[in-house]
Amino acid sequence: MKELTFVGLGLNDEEGISFRGLEETRNADSVFMELYTSLLPEFSLKRFEDLAGKKVTLLSRRDLEEANGEAVLKAAENGCAVLLVPGDPFVATTHISLRIEAEKRGIKTRIVHGASAISAVIGLSGLHNYKFGKTVTIPFPENSSETPYNVIAQNKARGLHTLCLLDLKADEQRFLSVNEGLQSLLSVERKTRKGAVTSETLAVGAARVGSANPALKADWAGELLKYDFGGPPQSLIFPGELHFMEAEALIRLAGAPKNLRGMVK
Amino acid sequence: MKELTFVGLGLNDEEGISFRGLEETRNADSVFMELYTSLLPEFSLKRFEDLAGKKVTLLSRRDLEEANGEAVLKAAENGCAVLLVPGDPFVATTHISLRIEAEKRGIKTRIVHGASAISAVIGLSGLHNYKFGKTVTIPFPENSSETPYNVIAQNKARGLHTLCLLDLKADEQRFLSVNEGLQSLLSVERKTRKGAVTSETLAVGAARVGSANPALKADWAGELLKYDFGGPPQSLIFPGELHFMEAEALIRLAGAPKNLRGMVK
Repeated sequence: MKELTFVGLGLNDEEGISFRGLEETRNADSVFMELYTSLLPEFSLKRFEDLAGKKVTLLSRRDLEEANGEAVLKAAENGCAVLLVPGDPFVATTHISLRIEAEKRGIKTRIVHGASAISAVIGLSGLHNYKFGKTVTIPFPENSSETPYNVIAQNKARGLHTLCLLDLKADEQRFLSVNEGLQSLLSVERKTRKGAVTSETLAVGAARVGSANPALKADWAGELLKYDFGGPPQSLIFPGELHFMEAEALIRLAGAPKNLRGMVK
Repeated sequence: MKELTFVGLGLNDEEGISFRGLEETRNADSVFMELYTSLLPEFSLKRFEDLAGKKVTLLSRRDLEEANGEAVLKAAENGCAVLLVPGDPFVATTHISLRIEAEKRGIKTRIVHGASAISAVIGLSGLHNYKFGKTVTIPFPENSSETPYNVIAQNKARGLHTLCLLDLKADEQRFLSVNEGLQSLLSVERKTRKGAVTSETLAVGAARVGSANPALKADWAGELLKYDFGGPPQSLIFPGELHFMEAEALIRLAGAPKNLRGMVK
Protein backbone atom coordinates (compact mmCIF):
# COMPACT_ATOMS: atom_id res chain seq x y z
CA MET A 1 0.00 0.00 0.00
CA LYS A 2 1.54 3.28 -1.17
CA GLU A 3 -0.28 5.93 0.84
CA LEU A 4 0.33 9.39 2.26
CA THR A 5 -2.25 10.83 4.65
CA PHE A 6 -2.09 14.49 5.66
CA VAL A 7 -3.52 14.79 9.16
CA GLY A 8 -4.48 18.10 10.80
CA LEU A 9 -3.33 18.58 14.40
CA GLY A 10 -6.02 21.22 14.98
CA LEU A 11 -5.32 23.90 17.58
CA ASN A 12 -3.24 24.56 20.69
CA ASP A 13 -1.88 21.20 21.89
CA GLU A 14 -1.73 17.44 21.29
CA GLU A 15 -5.46 17.07 22.05
CA GLY A 16 -6.51 19.23 19.08
CA ILE A 17 -6.27 16.31 16.63
CA SER A 18 -9.47 14.48 15.67
CA PHE A 19 -10.15 10.99 16.97
CA ARG A 20 -9.90 9.77 13.35
CA GLY A 21 -6.53 11.48 12.92
CA LEU A 22 -5.24 9.81 16.06
CA GLU A 23 -6.43 6.41 14.78
CA GLU A 24 -4.72 6.98 11.40
CA THR A 25 -1.51 7.88 13.24
CA ARG A 26 -1.71 4.77 15.43
CA ASN A 27 -2.12 2.56 12.35
CA ALA A 28 0.54 4.19 10.14
CA ASP A 29 3.83 2.54 9.17
CA SER A 30 5.71 5.82 9.52
CA VAL A 31 4.76 9.13 11.13
CA PHE A 32 6.15 12.58 10.31
CA MET A 33 5.25 15.99 11.71
CA GLU A 34 6.01 19.64 11.01
CA LEU A 35 5.42 22.42 13.52
CA TYR A 36 6.80 25.45 11.68
CA THR A 37 3.81 26.60 9.57
CA SER A 38 1.79 27.58 12.64
CA LEU A 39 2.14 27.70 16.42
CA LEU A 40 0.45 25.20 18.74
CA PRO A 41 1.40 27.07 21.93
CA GLU A 42 0.92 24.23 24.43
CA PHE A 43 1.92 21.31 22.21
CA SER A 44 4.26 18.63 23.59
CA LEU A 45 5.77 16.12 21.16
CA LYS A 46 6.42 13.74 24.07
CA ARG A 47 2.77 13.79 25.17
CA PHE A 48 1.64 13.35 21.56
CA GLU A 49 3.88 10.31 21.10
CA ASP A 50 2.49 8.82 24.32
CA LEU A 51 -1.10 9.47 23.16
CA ALA A 52 -0.51 7.95 19.72
CA GLY A 53 1.83 5.20 20.89
CA LYS A 54 4.17 6.04 18.00
CA LYS A 55 7.57 7.57 17.46
CA VAL A 56 7.31 10.75 15.35
CA THR A 57 9.97 12.15 13.00
CA LEU A 58 9.94 15.94 13.28
CA LEU A 59 10.64 17.70 9.96
CA SER A 60 12.09 21.18 9.48
CA ARG A 61 11.16 23.77 6.86
CA ARG A 62 14.33 22.72 5.04
CA ASP A 63 13.24 19.04 4.97
CA LEU A 64 9.88 19.91 3.45
CA GLU A 65 10.59 22.95 1.28
CA GLU A 66 14.16 22.54 0.03
CA ALA A 67 14.19 18.74 -0.10
CA ASN A 68 10.46 18.75 -1.06
CA GLY A 69 9.63 16.12 1.56
CA GLU A 70 11.74 13.38 -0.04
CA ALA A 71 11.88 11.44 3.26
CA VAL A 72 8.07 11.46 3.45
CA LEU A 73 7.72 10.37 -0.18
CA LYS A 74 10.22 7.53 0.29
CA ALA A 75 8.30 6.27 3.33
CA ALA A 76 4.97 6.53 1.48
CA GLU A 77 6.39 4.49 -1.42
CA ASN A 78 6.93 1.66 1.05
CA GLY A 79 3.75 1.71 3.16
CA CYS A 80 1.29 4.00 4.89
CA ALA A 81 2.88 7.30 5.87
CA VAL A 82 1.23 10.06 7.90
CA LEU A 83 2.31 13.70 7.85
CA LEU A 84 0.89 15.67 10.79
CA VAL A 85 0.56 19.43 10.33
CA PRO A 86 -0.85 22.22 12.57
CA GLY A 87 -4.48 23.27 11.98
CA ASP A 88 -6.26 21.96 8.87
CA PRO A 89 -3.97 20.69 6.07
CA PHE A 90 -3.51 22.86 2.94
CA VAL A 91 -5.37 25.86 4.33
CA ALA A 92 -2.05 27.70 4.56
CA THR A 93 -1.07 26.87 0.91
CA THR A 94 2.00 24.89 2.04
CA HIS A 95 2.53 21.19 1.25
CA ILE A 96 0.30 21.22 -1.83
CA SER A 97 3.34 20.63 -4.08
CA LEU A 98 4.20 17.62 -1.89
CA ARG A 99 0.69 16.26 -2.39
CA ILE A 100 0.91 16.74 -6.16
CA GLU A 101 4.37 15.09 -6.29
CA ALA A 102 3.06 12.11 -4.30
CA GLU A 103 0.14 11.63 -6.72
CA LYS A 104 2.56 11.83 -9.70
CA ARG A 105 4.53 8.96 -8.13
CA GLY A 106 1.41 6.82 -7.80
CA ILE A 107 1.05 7.35 -4.05
CA LYS A 108 -2.57 7.61 -2.93
CA THR A 109 -3.10 10.76 -0.85
CA ARG A 110 -5.81 11.50 1.68
CA ILE A 111 -6.65 14.28 4.14
CA VAL A 112 -7.89 13.97 7.72
CA HIS A 113 -9.09 17.46 8.55
CA GLY A 114 -8.50 19.38 11.77
CA ALA A 115 -9.80 22.59 13.29
CA SER A 116 -8.38 25.63 11.51
CA ALA A 117 -7.44 28.91 13.20
CA ILE A 118 -9.33 30.68 10.42
CA SER A 119 -12.77 29.27 11.19
CA ALA A 120 -11.99 29.19 14.92
CA VAL A 121 -11.20 32.92 15.16
CA ILE A 122 -14.35 33.76 13.21
CA GLY A 123 -16.46 31.47 15.41
CA LEU A 124 -14.96 32.86 18.62
CA SER A 125 -15.59 36.47 17.52
CA GLY A 126 -19.33 35.89 17.05
CA LEU A 127 -19.18 37.61 13.64
CA HIS A 128 -20.96 35.96 10.72
CA ASN A 129 -18.70 33.89 8.51
CA TYR A 130 -20.56 34.75 5.31
CA LYS A 131 -19.90 38.47 5.87
CA PHE A 132 -16.11 38.11 5.63
CA GLY A 133 -14.32 39.24 2.48
CA LYS A 134 -10.81 38.29 1.41
CA THR A 135 -8.42 37.28 4.22
CA VAL A 136 -5.00 38.92 4.41
CA THR A 137 -1.74 38.39 6.30
CA ILE A 138 0.01 41.36 7.91
CA PRO A 139 3.74 40.81 7.31
CA PHE A 140 6.72 41.47 9.58
CA PRO A 141 8.05 45.07 9.43
CA GLU A 142 10.96 44.10 7.13
CA ASN A 143 8.38 43.02 4.51
CA SER A 144 5.87 45.74 5.26
CA SER A 145 3.37 46.53 2.53
CA GLU A 146 0.22 48.58 1.99
CA THR A 147 -1.66 45.52 0.76
CA PRO A 148 -3.32 44.57 4.08
CA TYR A 149 -4.60 48.13 4.53
CA ASN A 150 -5.98 48.14 1.00
CA VAL A 151 -7.69 44.76 1.44
CA ILE A 152 -9.42 46.06 4.58
CA ALA A 153 -10.49 49.19 2.68
CA GLN A 154 -11.84 47.17 -0.27
CA ASN A 155 -13.75 44.77 1.98
CA LYS A 156 -15.20 47.67 3.99
CA ALA A 157 -16.38 49.36 0.81
CA ARG A 158 -18.57 46.26 0.30
CA GLY A 159 -19.64 46.18 3.97
CA LEU A 160 -17.51 43.10 4.62
CA HIS A 161 -15.36 42.07 7.60
CA THR A 162 -11.63 41.33 7.17
CA LEU A 163 -9.70 38.62 8.98
CA CYS A 164 -6.04 39.63 9.30
CA LEU A 165 -3.65 36.81 10.06
CA LEU A 166 -0.45 37.98 11.70
CA ASP A 167 2.83 36.78 10.24
CA LEU A 168 4.78 34.15 12.13
CA LYS A 169 7.95 32.13 11.86
CA ALA A 170 7.32 29.43 14.42
CA ASP A 171 10.74 27.85 13.79
CA GLU A 172 12.39 31.18 14.76
CA GLN A 173 9.94 31.90 17.60
CA ARG A 174 8.86 35.12 15.89
CA PHE A 175 5.18 36.15 16.03
CA LEU A 176 3.64 39.44 14.99
CA SER A 177 1.33 40.77 17.74
CA VAL A 178 -2.05 42.53 17.54
CA ASN A 179 -0.23 45.67 18.69
CA GLU A 180 2.37 45.47 15.91
CA GLY A 181 -0.31 44.67 13.32
CA LEU A 182 -2.32 47.73 14.35
CA GLN A 183 0.80 49.94 14.33
CA SER A 184 1.61 48.77 10.82
CA LEU A 185 -1.89 49.63 9.54
CA LEU A 186 -1.96 52.99 11.35
CA SER A 187 1.36 53.94 9.74
CA VAL A 188 -0.19 53.35 6.31
CA GLU A 189 -3.09 55.56 7.41
CA ARG A 190 -0.67 58.35 8.36
CA LYS A 191 0.85 58.19 4.88
CA THR A 192 -2.29 57.76 2.77
CA ARG A 193 -5.07 59.41 4.85
CA LYS A 194 -7.72 57.18 3.29
CA GLY A 195 -9.52 56.68 6.60
CA ALA A 196 -9.95 52.89 6.40
CA VAL A 197 -8.05 52.22 9.66
CA THR A 198 -7.75 55.10 12.11
CA SER A 199 -7.47 55.13 15.90
CA GLU A 200 -11.30 55.45 15.92
CA THR A 201 -11.84 52.29 13.81
CA LEU A 202 -13.44 49.26 15.45
CA ALA A 203 -11.07 46.28 15.61
CA VAL A 204 -11.17 42.87 17.28
CA GLY A 205 -8.04 41.16 18.57
CA ALA A 206 -7.78 37.46 19.43
CA ALA A 207 -5.03 35.33 20.93
CA ARG A 208 -4.46 31.63 21.63
CA VAL A 209 -7.74 30.60 20.03
CA GLY A 210 -8.43 26.93 20.80
CA SER A 211 -6.66 27.04 24.17
CA ALA A 212 -8.35 26.97 27.59
CA ASN A 213 -7.75 30.73 27.97
CA PRO A 214 -8.19 32.50 24.64
CA ALA A 215 -8.16 36.31 24.64
CA LEU A 216 -10.80 38.26 22.70
CA LYS A 217 -11.22 42.04 22.86
CA ALA A 218 -13.09 44.47 20.61
CA ASP A 219 -12.41 48.20 20.85
CA TRP A 220 -11.47 51.27 18.84
CA ALA A 221 -7.99 50.71 17.39
CA GLY A 222 -6.41 53.46 19.51
CA GLU A 223 -7.71 51.79 22.68
CA LEU A 224 -6.93 48.26 21.50
CA LEU A 225 -3.24 49.26 21.26
CA LYS A 226 -3.20 49.38 25.08
CA TYR A 227 -4.77 45.93 25.61
CA ASP A 228 -2.53 43.08 26.77
CA PHE A 229 -3.35 39.98 24.71
CA GLY A 230 -0.65 37.81 26.31
CA GLY A 231 1.30 35.27 24.27
CA PRO A 232 1.00 34.18 20.62
CA PRO A 233 -0.52 33.26 18.25
CA GLN A 234 -2.67 36.35 17.72
CA SER A 235 -4.93 37.68 14.98
CA LEU A 236 -7.04 40.72 14.13
CA ILE A 237 -10.46 41.34 12.62
CA PHE A 238 -11.76 44.58 11.12
CA PRO A 239 -15.57 44.45 11.05
CA GLY A 240 -17.50 45.94 8.15
CA GLU A 241 -21.22 46.55 8.59
CA LEU A 242 -22.60 44.99 11.77
CA HIS A 243 -25.80 43.00 12.11
CA PHE A 244 -27.68 43.53 15.40
CA MET A 245 -26.66 40.09 16.72
CA GLU A 246 -23.01 40.67 15.77
CA ALA A 247 -22.92 43.90 17.78
CA GLU A 248 -24.50 42.11 20.77
CA ALA A 249 -21.91 39.32 20.47
CA LEU A 250 -19.00 41.79 20.37
CA ILE A 251 -20.35 43.68 23.40
CA ARG A 252 -21.12 40.58 25.45
CA LEU A 253 -18.29 38.24 24.40
CA ALA A 254 -15.49 40.64 23.42
CA GLY A 255 -16.10 43.55 25.81
CA ALA A 256 -16.79 46.00 22.98
CA PRO A 257 -17.95 49.57 23.81
CA LYS A 258 -21.75 49.64 24.22
CA ASN A 259 -22.19 52.54 21.78
CA LEU A 260 -21.40 49.97 19.08
CA ARG A 261 -25.16 49.43 18.99
CA GLY A 262 -25.41 52.76 17.14
CA MET A 263 -23.31 51.28 14.28
CA VAL A 264 -25.79 48.48 13.47
CA LYS A 265 -27.13 48.54 9.92
CA MET B 1 -19.69 25.18 38.39
CA LYS B 2 -22.03 26.85 35.88
CA GLU B 3 -20.52 26.06 32.52
CA LEU B 4 -21.60 25.53 28.93
CA THR B 5 -19.04 24.20 26.45
CA PHE B 6 -19.81 24.20 22.73
CA VAL B 7 -17.94 21.30 21.16
CA GLY B 8 -17.44 20.86 17.40
CA LEU B 9 -18.11 17.37 16.03
CA GLY B 10 -15.97 18.09 12.96
CA LEU B 11 -16.80 16.21 9.78
CA ASN B 12 -18.47 13.04 8.51
CA ASP B 13 -18.89 10.72 11.54
CA GLU B 14 -18.36 10.24 15.27
CA GLU B 15 -14.55 10.21 14.81
CA GLY B 16 -14.44 13.80 13.51
CA ILE B 17 -14.45 15.26 17.04
CA SER B 18 -11.13 16.35 18.55
CA PHE B 19 -9.55 14.32 21.33
CA ARG B 20 -10.08 17.35 23.62
CA GLY B 21 -13.76 17.50 22.67
CA LEU B 22 -14.17 13.84 23.49
CA GLU B 23 -12.52 14.38 26.90
CA GLU B 24 -14.82 17.34 27.63
CA THR B 25 -17.81 15.19 26.74
CA ARG B 26 -16.64 12.34 28.97
CA ASN B 27 -16.25 14.73 31.91
CA ALA B 28 -19.50 16.68 31.47
CA ASP B 29 -22.49 16.47 33.81
CA SER B 30 -24.92 16.62 30.90
CA VAL B 31 -24.47 16.19 27.17
CA PHE B 32 -26.66 17.61 24.38
CA MET B 33 -26.28 17.38 20.61
CA GLU B 34 -27.88 18.87 17.50
CA LEU B 35 -27.49 17.38 14.04
CA TYR B 36 -29.74 19.66 11.96
CA THR B 37 -27.40 22.58 11.07
CA SER B 38 -25.20 20.37 8.91
CA LEU B 39 -24.98 16.78 7.70
CA LEU B 40 -22.47 14.28 9.07
CA PRO B 41 -23.29 11.58 6.49
CA GLU B 42 -21.83 8.57 8.34
CA PHE B 43 -22.54 9.66 11.92
CA SER B 44 -24.03 7.15 14.37
CA LEU B 45 -25.33 8.43 17.70
CA LYS B 46 -25.00 4.93 19.16
CA ARG B 47 -21.33 4.67 18.22
CA PHE B 48 -20.72 8.18 19.55
CA GLU B 49 -22.31 7.32 22.89
CA ASP B 50 -20.14 4.20 23.10
CA LEU B 51 -16.99 6.20 22.29
CA ALA B 52 -17.78 8.90 24.85
CA GLY B 53 -19.29 6.58 27.44
CA LYS B 54 -22.18 9.04 27.88
CA LYS B 55 -25.86 9.26 27.15
CA VAL B 56 -26.60 12.13 24.76
CA THR B 57 -29.82 14.18 24.56
CA LEU B 58 -30.54 14.94 20.90
CA LEU B 59 -32.10 18.38 20.35
CA SER B 60 -34.29 19.48 17.46
CA ARG B 61 -34.34 22.83 15.67
CA ARG B 62 -37.46 23.60 17.71
CA ASP B 63 -35.65 22.88 21.02
CA LEU B 64 -32.84 25.25 20.16
CA GLU B 65 -34.47 27.96 18.07
CA GLU B 66 -38.02 28.28 19.38
CA ALA B 67 -37.29 27.35 23.00
CA ASN B 68 -33.84 29.07 22.69
CA GLY B 69 -32.10 26.06 24.26
CA GLU B 70 -33.81 26.39 27.63
CA ALA B 71 -33.03 22.73 28.49
CA VAL B 72 -29.33 23.35 27.82
CA LEU B 73 -29.31 26.56 29.88
CA LYS B 74 -31.07 24.83 32.80
CA ALA B 75 -28.48 22.03 32.78
CA ALA B 76 -25.59 24.53 32.57
CA GLU B 77 -26.97 26.40 35.58
CA ASN B 78 -26.55 23.20 37.58
CA GLY B 79 -23.17 21.91 36.40
CA CYS B 80 -20.99 21.42 33.34
CA ALA B 81 -23.06 21.04 30.19
CA VAL B 82 -21.73 20.22 26.74
CA LEU B 83 -23.55 21.02 23.48
CA LEU B 84 -22.15 19.08 20.52
CA VAL B 85 -22.67 20.59 17.06
CA PRO B 86 -21.55 19.54 13.55
CA GLY B 87 -18.35 21.14 12.19
CA ASP B 88 -16.84 24.09 14.09
CA PRO B 89 -19.23 25.88 16.49
CA PHE B 90 -20.59 29.32 15.47
CA VAL B 91 -19.21 29.21 11.93
CA ALA B 92 -22.76 28.82 10.66
CA THR B 93 -24.10 31.81 12.71
CA THR B 94 -26.46 29.58 14.67
CA HIS B 95 -26.35 29.21 18.47
CA ILE B 96 -24.68 32.59 19.03
CA SER B 97 -27.83 33.88 20.74
CA LEU B 98 -27.70 30.84 23.05
CA ARG B 99 -24.10 31.67 23.94
CA ILE B 100 -25.01 35.31 24.67
CA GLU B 101 -28.01 34.25 26.79
CA ALA B 102 -25.82 31.85 28.80
CA GLU B 103 -23.27 34.61 29.52
CA LYS B 104 -26.09 36.94 30.61
CA ARG B 105 -27.16 34.30 33.13
CA GLY B 106 -23.66 34.06 34.58
CA ILE B 107 -22.84 30.76 32.87
CA LYS B 108 -19.23 30.53 31.73
CA THR B 109 -19.05 29.54 28.04
CA ARG B 110 -16.19 27.93 26.17
CA ILE B 111 -15.58 26.52 22.69
CA VAL B 112 -13.78 23.35 21.69
CA HIS B 113 -13.22 23.76 17.97
CA GLY B 114 -13.71 21.13 15.28
CA ALA B 115 -12.87 20.83 11.60
CA SER B 116 -15.15 23.03 9.51
CA ALA B 117 -16.48 22.13 6.05
CA ILE B 118 -15.46 25.61 4.94
CA SER B 119 -11.72 25.23 5.50
CA ALA B 120 -11.89 21.54 4.56
CA VAL B 121 -13.39 22.15 1.11
CA ILE B 122 -10.83 24.88 0.42
CA GLY B 123 -7.97 22.64 1.58
CA LEU B 124 -9.22 19.68 -0.47
CA SER B 125 -9.53 21.82 -3.62
CA GLY B 126 -5.88 22.88 -3.53
CA LEU B 127 -6.91 26.51 -4.08
CA HIS B 128 -5.30 29.19 -1.90
CA ASN B 129 -7.39 30.22 1.07
CA TYR B 130 -6.27 33.86 0.96
CA LYS B 131 -7.59 34.21 -2.61
CA PHE B 132 -11.21 33.54 -1.62
CA GLY B 133 -13.66 36.44 -1.43
CA LYS B 134 -17.01 36.44 0.30
CA THR B 135 -18.68 33.04 0.79
CA VAL B 136 -22.29 32.59 -0.28
CA THR B 137 -25.05 30.00 0.15
CA ILE B 138 -27.11 28.92 -2.87
CA PRO B 139 -30.69 28.53 -1.58
CA PHE B 140 -33.36 25.97 -2.43
CA PRO B 141 -35.42 26.80 -5.57
CA GLU B 142 -38.36 28.10 -3.50
CA ASN B 143 -36.06 30.81 -2.07
CA SER B 144 -34.09 31.36 -5.26
CA SER B 145 -32.26 34.66 -5.57
CA GLU B 146 -29.74 36.38 -7.83
CA THR B 147 -27.46 37.11 -4.86
CA PRO B 148 -25.16 34.07 -5.24
CA TYR B 149 -24.62 34.88 -8.92
CA ASN B 150 -23.81 38.50 -8.08
CA VAL B 151 -21.39 37.52 -5.29
CA ILE B 152 -19.51 35.28 -7.74
CA ALA B 153 -19.42 38.13 -10.28
CA GLN B 154 -18.14 40.64 -7.69
CA ASN B 155 -15.45 38.27 -6.41
CA LYS B 156 -14.34 37.47 -9.97
CA ALA B 157 -14.03 41.17 -10.78
CA ARG B 158 -11.36 41.27 -8.07
CA GLY B 159 -9.73 38.02 -9.26
CA LEU B 160 -11.07 36.13 -6.22
CA HIS B 161 -12.47 32.61 -5.81
CA THR B 162 -15.99 32.03 -4.43
CA LEU B 163 -17.00 29.20 -2.13
CA CYS B 164 -20.70 28.41 -2.61
CA LEU B 165 -22.29 26.43 0.18
CA LEU B 166 -25.39 24.53 -0.91
CA ASP B 167 -28.50 24.90 1.18
CA LEU B 168 -29.55 22.00 3.38
CA LYS B 169 -32.23 21.05 5.83
CA ALA B 170 -30.64 18.05 7.51
CA ASP B 171 -33.72 17.51 9.70
CA GLU B 172 -35.85 17.16 6.53
CA GLN B 173 -33.20 15.19 4.60
CA ARG B 174 -33.11 17.89 1.92
CA PHE B 175 -29.77 18.80 0.36
CA LEU B 176 -29.12 20.98 -2.66
CA SER B 177 -26.75 19.23 -5.11
CA VAL B 178 -23.89 20.60 -7.23
CA ASN B 179 -26.11 19.99 -10.25
CA GLU B 180 -29.02 22.01 -8.80
CA GLY B 181 -26.67 24.79 -7.68
CA LEU B 182 -25.21 25.06 -11.18
CA GLN B 183 -28.67 25.03 -12.78
CA SER B 184 -29.75 27.84 -10.47
CA LEU B 185 -26.76 30.01 -11.44
CA LEU B 186 -27.12 29.24 -15.16
CA SER B 187 -30.77 30.29 -15.03
CA VAL B 188 -29.66 33.70 -13.68
CA GLU B 189 -27.17 33.87 -16.55
CA ARG B 190 -29.93 33.22 -19.09
CA LYS B 191 -31.90 36.15 -17.64
CA THR B 192 -29.11 38.67 -17.08
CA ARG B 193 -26.46 37.73 -19.69
CA LYS B 194 -23.68 39.15 -17.53
CA GLY B 195 -21.30 36.29 -18.35
CA ALA B 196 -20.14 35.53 -14.78
CA VAL B 197 -21.34 31.89 -14.85
CA THR B 198 -21.84 30.30 -18.27
CA SER B 199 -21.52 26.69 -19.40
CA GLU B 200 -17.89 27.55 -20.30
CA THR B 201 -17.05 28.80 -16.78
CA LEU B 202 -14.61 26.78 -14.68
CA ALA B 203 -16.24 25.32 -11.56
CA VAL B 204 -15.19 22.85 -8.88
CA GLY B 205 -17.65 20.52 -7.18
CA ALA B 206 -16.98 18.66 -3.93
CA ALA B 207 -18.96 16.09 -1.96
CA ARG B 208 -18.62 14.32 1.40
CA VAL B 209 -15.49 16.24 2.36
CA GLY B 210 -13.93 14.68 5.44
CA SER B 211 -15.15 11.16 4.60
CA ALA B 212 -12.97 8.29 3.35
CA ASN B 213 -14.29 8.82 -0.21
CA PRO B 214 -14.75 12.53 -0.92
CA ALA B 215 -15.56 13.53 -4.50
CA LEU B 216 -13.73 16.43 -6.14
CA LYS B 217 -14.09 17.40 -9.79
CA ALA B 218 -13.15 20.55 -11.70
CA ASP B 219 -14.53 21.19 -15.17
CA TRP B 220 -16.40 23.71 -17.30
CA ALA B 221 -19.85 24.21 -15.79
CA GLY B 222 -21.64 22.63 -18.77
CA GLU B 223 -19.55 19.46 -18.36
CA LEU B 224 -19.76 19.46 -14.56
CA LEU B 225 -23.56 19.17 -14.88
CA LYS B 226 -23.01 15.61 -16.13
CA TYR B 227 -20.71 14.52 -13.30
CA ASP B 228 -22.10 12.19 -10.62
CA PHE B 229 -20.98 13.46 -7.21
CA GLY B 230 -22.88 10.80 -5.25
CA GLY B 231 -24.54 11.62 -1.94
CA PRO B 232 -24.60 14.81 0.17
CA PRO B 233 -23.30 17.11 1.50
CA GLN B 234 -21.96 18.90 -1.57
CA SER B 235 -20.47 22.30 -2.34
CA LEU B 236 -19.22 24.37 -5.26
CA ILE B 237 -16.27 26.67 -5.91
CA PHE B 238 -15.93 29.22 -8.71
CA PRO B 239 -12.24 30.04 -9.15
CA GLY B 240 -11.11 33.58 -9.97
CA GLU B 241 -7.58 34.11 -11.26
CA LEU B 242 -5.43 30.99 -10.96
CA HIS B 243 -1.88 30.79 -9.69
CA PHE B 244 0.34 28.26 -11.49
CA MET B 245 0.28 25.88 -8.50
CA GLU B 246 -3.52 26.15 -8.18
CA ALA B 247 -3.97 25.11 -11.82
CA GLU B 248 -1.61 22.15 -11.29
CA ALA B 249 -3.57 21.14 -8.18
CA LEU B 250 -6.92 21.28 -10.02
CA ILE B 251 -5.53 19.23 -12.93
CA ARG B 252 -3.82 16.63 -10.75
CA LEU B 253 -6.23 16.40 -7.79
CA ALA B 254 -9.59 17.39 -9.32
CA GLY B 255 -9.24 16.05 -12.88
CA ALA B 256 -9.53 19.51 -14.45
CA PRO B 257 -9.01 19.94 -18.21
CA LYS B 258 -5.30 20.36 -18.99
CA ASN B 259 -5.86 23.53 -21.05
CA LEU B 260 -6.50 25.21 -17.68
CA ARG B 261 -2.76 25.95 -17.73
CA GLY B 262 -3.51 28.63 -20.33
CA MET B 263 -5.66 30.48 -17.76
CA VAL B 264 -2.83 30.99 -15.25
CA LYS B 265 -2.08 34.63 -14.44
